[in-house]
Amino acid sequence: MIEFSAQQIADFLKGSIIGDPEVKVNNLSKIENGKPGTLTFLSNPKYTPYIYETNASIVLVNNTFEPERDVKATLIKVEDSYKALSLLLNLVAANMPKPAAGISPLAFVSETAKIGKDVYIGEFAYIGNNVEIADGARIYPQVFLGHNTKIGANTTLYAGVKIYDSCVVGANCILHSGCVLGADGFGFVPEKDGSWSKLPQIGNVYVEDNVEIGANTTIDRSTMGSTHIHKDVKLDNLVHIAHNVEVGDNTAMAAQCGIAGSTKIGKNCILAGQVGIVGHISIADRTVFGAQSGCSRSVKNEGEMLMGYPVRPLMKYKRMTAIEHKLPEIYEEFNALKKEVEELKRN
Amino acid sequence: MIEFSAQQIADFLKGSIIGDPEVKVNNLSKIENGKPGTLTFLSNPKYTPYIYETNASIVLVNNTFEPERDVKATLIKVEDSYKALSLLLNLVAANMPKPAAGISPLAFVSETAKIGKDVYIGEFAYIGNNVEIADGARIYPQVFLGHNTKIGANTTLYAGVKIYDSCVVGANCILHSGCVLGADGFGFVPEKDGSWSKLPQIGNVYVEDNVEIGANTTIDRSTMGSTHIHKDVKLDNLVHIAHNVEVGDNTAMAAQCGIAGSTKIGKNCILAGQVGIVGHISIADRTVFGAQSGCSRSVKNEGEMLMGYPVRPLMKYKRMTAIEHKLPEIYEEFNALKKEVEELKRN
Amino acid sequence: MIEFSAQQIADFLKGSIIGDPEVKVNNLSKIENGKPGTLTFLSNPKYTPYIYETNASIVLVNNTFEPERDVKATLIKVEDSYKALSLLLNLVAANMPKPAAGISPLAFVSETAKIGKDVYIGEFAYIGNNVEIADGARIYPQVFLGHNTKIGANTTLYAGVKIYDSCVVGANCILHSGCVLGADGFGFVPEKDGSWSKLPQIGNVYVEDNVEIGANTTIDRSTMGSTHIHKDVKLDNLVHIAHNVEVGDNTAMAAQCGIAGSTKIGKNCILAGQVGIVGHISIADRTVFGAQSGCSRSVKNEGEMLMGYPVRPLMKYKRMTAIEHKLPEIYEEFNALKKEVEELKRN
Repeated sequence: MIEFSAQQIADFLKGSIIGDPEVKVNNLSKIENGKPGTLTFLSNPKYTPYIYETNASIVLVNNTFEPERDVKATLIKVEDSYKALSLLLNLVAANMPKPAAGISPLAFVSETAKIGKDVYIGEFAYIGNNVEIADGARIYPQVFLGHNTKIGANTTLYAGVKIYDSCVVGANCILHSGCVLGADGFGFVPEKDGSWSKLPQIGNVYVEDNVEIGANTTIDRSTMGSTHIHKDVKLDNLVHIAHNVEVGDNTAMAAQCGIAGSTKIGKNCILAGQVGIVGHISIADRTVFGAQSGCSRSVKNEGEMLMGYPVRPLMKYKRMTAIEHKLPEIYEEFNALKKEVEELKRN
Repeated sequence: MIEFSAQQIADFLKGSIIGDPEVKVNNLSKIENGKPGTLTFLSNPKYTPYIYETNASIVLVNNTFEPERDVKATLIKVEDSYKALSLLLNLVAANMPKPAAGISPLAFVSETAKIGKDVYIGEFAYIGNNVEIADGARIYPQVFLGHNTKIGANTTLYAGVKIYDSCVVGANCILHSGCVLGADGFGFVPEKDGSWSKLPQIGNVYVEDNVEIGANTTIDRSTMGSTHIHKDVKLDNLVHIAHNVEVGDNTAMAAQCGIAGSTKIGKNCILAGQVGIVGHISIADRTVFGAQSGCSRSVKNEGEMLMGYPVRPLMKYKRMTAIEHKLPEIYEEFNALKKEVEELKRN
Repeated sequence: MIEFSAQQIADFLKGSIIGDPEVKVNNLSKIENGKPGTLTFLSNPKYTPYIYETNASIVLVNNTFEPERDVKATLIKVEDSYKALSLLLNLVAANMPKPAAGISPLAFVSETAKIGKDVYIGEFAYIGNNVEIADGARIYPQVFLGHNTKIGANTTLYAGVKIYDSCVVGANCILHSGCVLGADGFGFVPEKDGSWSKLPQIGNVYVEDNVEIGANTTIDRSTMGSTHIHKDVKLDNLVHIAHNVEVGDNTAMAAQCGIAGSTKIGKNCILAGQVGIVGHISIADRTVFGAQSGCSRSVKNEGEMLMGYPVRPLMKYKRMTAIEHKLPEIYEEFNALKKEVEELKRN
């Protein structure tokens, strides 16, 4: 990162400066361990105490931020400091070295695969028969693309991604290392002797554009038709999406969530970490689930916030938790009350 | 899939037809978005409403199904529609193109490995010293087989499966991409300074016949002896099986379950998703765990259904949950009652 | 393993013999299925009943162990039988065949990579530009090391480990198959239309010395700076560490734990399996979390034991759970009490 002055950054972000406009930075840092010559930001109020102590030279803050005492750093006030940071990070990222281009002679590419322009295919990648890879896609080393898979334009598959036969990934997607698309759904028919016979899974996984899928996340192929991830969905690491599931536009799931088979998740939902949702239900748009929630029923009203095991409306969950917290005391009071009633009855 | 008439399918499944025996289908579909020219099925009663709306041409239903109003589709009645579907899916799957055969010149195969007949070994697979691969096994690209591993006949290891030294996998198994067998068990001896010294794990993983293991599932090697997965066990994705665990015949675990070290799971158990079971306990045959259950004690009676954190018998869990749900109201009533008793005492 | 007598083993461990000092063993076994000619151990009291039945020839026991009835096996008494076992296992492990040395001609190693002495690089491994691998490191087949990564001396990366650009791993670490270091942190800025714009993650992952990381565990790169794993940390399989997290010395996490972004975990903490900890909080040193705990607040006092969802002090959790267990009965009593009070009021 080349050196920039507070003035240059404020101009770029259309922000205003409080402090020295000439101070220069050449790197970014976290507010809690910022060093001189770096720029940091304050967005989450939890970190406000650090602004008075940070050694960073520049701090991006929201317009609404008013310091309660002296701040060493130069402040740049912007409408939304998190978005401003995003702009700067994008600037930095755009100047990072590009990955190698071209098709490695150490990759295996089937003669029947169709490879677009400006595609990168790294060492030891396997590209099966009739695979289609659109322009600008980047296939890192050790990726596996089964027969008849399709990868959209400018999509990145990081090292070791595995995609089974006939699955489809849209444009501008990012799939992180170790994620697996298209393994067989978990479908078995119970036999009378207690064993299981396998239900063949002949569907696929269909991922639309602008989807990001985390490291070691798994999305199973459908029994029939498609397990369907709509556009702009963001899945964190180690998430499990079972067969026949549908996930609506813009829905985001934090790490280690699990969605059981045939469930339909609406648009713009947010699932915090380790949430579990049972199979064969339907979740309304804009539903928000707190961490570790367990949902075993359909959610019909849009925009509900739910939490708990089993899930309840967030406010109810909080009230219940507060009472549960007091249960030992309440139980003592209850036993005392029983004695009092006994006594009253005796008199 | 070639075109078949309702009559041909009913004959094959030994079912009876309600509707047009001449209607033809050439593909399968889900009941909720079935298209003309496709066959679908109704098994789970949750999907019954869709049968009156589906555009699929044929629906497999159970003999017990009686429509409550008009159904456009031709029905084929069979004893068990899910099993009938399984028969059809197997027929379709059997006619799908077979994976490549033979040993890729781009695989690495140790000179001391013993490879059976009709074995497939894909590109960039690594086959270590003294490995034994039995007839008909299919080793996809980028699989790693450590020294002295043994793979049974007709077993499939999908792309990127990793098996450490000396582990054994039986016949007719299916291991999905990214699953790891034989990583070191999590065993450390605490030292006085708070650090840990590693307890070497010199055992292995032993998987019997007809086992299916999901994508990115991990099964650790034993400290001594074997971590032992018995025949016909089915593990979904992202499951963790710790060292020294034993899992009995036919037991099925849904995604993201975790079994801690040295625990013994009985036969024919069913674990729903995200269940956790602590170490050094024993679970009786045919135990069923609800989703996200946390089990920290041995289960001695066979066939129990358990749920909750910590687990309780399912009926008890349901009653408890119902009361917990009312806790805010109950607590108000309790406080009112306290006041009433106060008043009674005053009089 | 060559044959040793009880006398030889007792001498090596500085233990005392009860029984036949001449009995010989040539292998190790579990106490519950020990065979003649093998050595086993008793440490966890749960396994005490097996000592009277085991067919193992020698059992390591603690000095404090006093048999309540006849034991067939020869006992070797030591101060700490688990540590003594560890010594023996290390002896066995040290005599196991060493992995192949040297750099496979089937690996891809960038011309700009710096490779130390006695380094092993297996088949189909990818070593990017400017990577530094220190002396004695062992890089198994199919590992991916992005540009500018650094691997410390004597560190082992098992088959298929993926490390993104610019991440750093210390000396004497063990990373198990399928773990992913340095995938993008899960950071997105919400847009007004409900979609997400990606916050570039330009930091890295920094792992200190003596760290062990389990199979398929994921540690995300930081937005800025480092996601930081301190020395002697032990992470089990399928753990998720989000961006900007810091994990203190010696902390151990069992399988499937998840730590959300920017949280700081202290030193010498222990997390049992499937624990979830929210983002932007701080956990004091020596905190212990029970299995499946969900922690959504900072922990300030060192050495606390916590459990539950949400977490409470362990003793409180146990009392609450005991009362919750009785809730159906308590609720009946409560309703009876209400009636009694009604009656008292009527009179």
